[in-house]
Amino acid sequence: MSLLVTGSIGIDTVKTPGGVRENCLGGAAIYFSMAASFFSPVRFVGVIGSDCPFDLAEIFAGRNVDLAGLELRPKSKTFRWTGSYHENMDDRTTECLELNVLAEAPPKVPEEFKDSEFVFLANTAPALQHELLGQVEKPVFVAADTMNCWIQNHMDDLKALLKKIDCLIINEDEARMLANERNLIKSGKKILKMGTGLVVIKKGESGSIMCSSDGDIFILPAFPADDVKDPTGAGDSFAGGFMGYLAQTGRTDFETLKTAVAYGTVVASFTIADFSLDGLTSTDRANIDRRLQELRNITQF
Amino acid sequence: MSLLVTGSIGIDTVKTPGGVRENCLGGAAIYFSMAASFFSPVRFVGVIGSDCPFDLAEIFAGRNVDLAGLELRPKSKTFRWTGSYHENMDDRTTECLELNVLAEAPPKVPEEFKDSEFVFLANTAPALQHELLGQVEKPVFVAADTMNCWIQNHMDDLKALLKKIDCLIINEDEARMLANERNLIKSGKKILKMGTGLVVIKKGESGSIMCSSDGDIFILPAFPADDVKDPTGAGDSFAGGFMGYLAQTGRTDFETLKTAVAYGTVVASFTIADFSLDGLTSTDRANIDRRLQELRNITQF
Repeated sequence: MSLLVTGSIGIDTVKTPGGVRENCLGGAAIYFSMAASFFSPVRFVGVIGSDCPFDLAEIFAGRNVDLAGLELRPKSKTFRWTGSYHENMDDRTTECLELNVLAEAPPKVPEEFKDSEFVFLANTAPALQHELLGQVEKPVFVAADTMNCWIQNHMDDLKALLKKIDCLIINEDEARMLANERNLIKSGKKILKMGTGLVVIKKGESGSIMCSSDGDIFILPAFPADDVKDPTGAGDSFAGGFMGYLAQTGRTDFETLKTAVAYGTVVASFTIADFSLDGLTSTDRANIDRRLQELRNITQF
Repeated sequence: MSLLVTGSIGIDTVKTPGGVRENCLGGAAIYFSMAASFFSPVRFVGVIGSDCPFDLAEIFAGRNVDLAGLELRPKSKTFRWTGSYHENMDDRTTECLELNVLAEAPPKVPEEFKDSEFVFLANTAPALQHELLGQVEKPVFVAADTMNCWIQNHMDDLKALLKKIDCLIINEDEARMLANERNLIKSGKKILKMGTGLVVIKKGESGSIMCSSDGDIFILPAFPADDVKDPTGAGDSFAGGFMGYLAQTGRTDFETLKTAVAYGTVVASFTIADFSLDGLTSTDRANIDRRLQELRNITQF
């Protein structure tokens, strides 16, 4: 089934205890699309400015990512982010953030994308996510990401969005903040009461928890990594693997959702093994499937 | 097969954000024995002083715990611990620690316990663990716990012990400290190089990781708890369920070890649901088996 993503395209500078990569390609929609394209064709919606040094058509060549929704704004500048990871590689400090095009009007969803069935609204202001979603005619399954600043300052917009989507994918600190509750299982249940039917809480190296409004729970550890080079994009890659697998199967029953979480976990494990997109672009579906089987072996009893 | 435990018997005062329980029964050997006795007979070795208000024969009545190794020292005082848990219920502060009998000579392993096949050496000075182990003739599988003060101040003793045991069961901070390595998978591998064939790293609400010197890995989340009343004894209950199941089956192949980790996880989930031993004493093997199946359902894909 068709899969649409809306989100950022970024020029990232990433500093880790192990090294630095300057001005590399990043952004939620980029990581998501690269990850999801292992499973399903992807319809891409995002904006760059005239300073963007990357040829996205070349980067996604052969990967079944339709860039009809990529908008170039000649008078604008591309989103830029500089961050440095702490020793634990889970926490990071944003050193520099230039929203640039992300502070402007959102992109338009092209006419030929409006019949999209699966939709991922990557992190941005919930009012914009709402507006973007409104451009899709009859979505079957909509997932969204959000972050602390929207929870703190745009809670009404976020609550309105939660009633319109099927799944919220957030990290553990955001879940605790949104639910105002420390215990993650209780947080998940409180978020479900806000209207979304499903919540996936990402816990970094401790894996993820998925709760549904039907009372189902799924908990999966992260794939064990003994060499994390750059965690940037792990969450968006997770979402890409998750949504890509759902779009591939066309199903959203809980058993399928469990496997989707496992694929998200595996795809993210490739992302963090190298800087920028290098971990994703150097693997393939066969490797991903092999690692899914490994993940099954080390978690099943 | 026979299962021996050596460890502390404590008079605990526990403070949590939800309540206080004063002068309740605690100690590693107590939690371990109560947990292990769901699976296998337990041989108990430990010391109390004349101030001990608990009748252990009554507390373990009907539970197949042989107290022949319980030593009463009329002139000594029982180990006491007072601790308070932080809001996250994983971290705690020790407010008061009176070693009392634990600072004296260790107990003797009774003659009739010397043929024990499975042995758990609960946390104490590694030299004492070594001495206690020396009193067992031909153990088949020996597991031990340790803690930060022994890692910091008695590393040589601990390294000598690691060459004598089959399995180290420790928490994540201790694993990082022992291995001098932040990444837990790398920590596990480094600890295995110190001589033990197996290491189980407990991560509190994030579950546990088991690594073997054969290169096998098993990762299991904690059973999801939305009401944690008192985490005291969770680690020793985990060890009790783990070792109890191994002793019950008489096997130590990796598939059996995986199920043992799952049983340890489930038994610990009962412990933390109430103060002191109340969570354990109010359940039974049928409940434990039901929860094991629940854990399977929420973790398998």
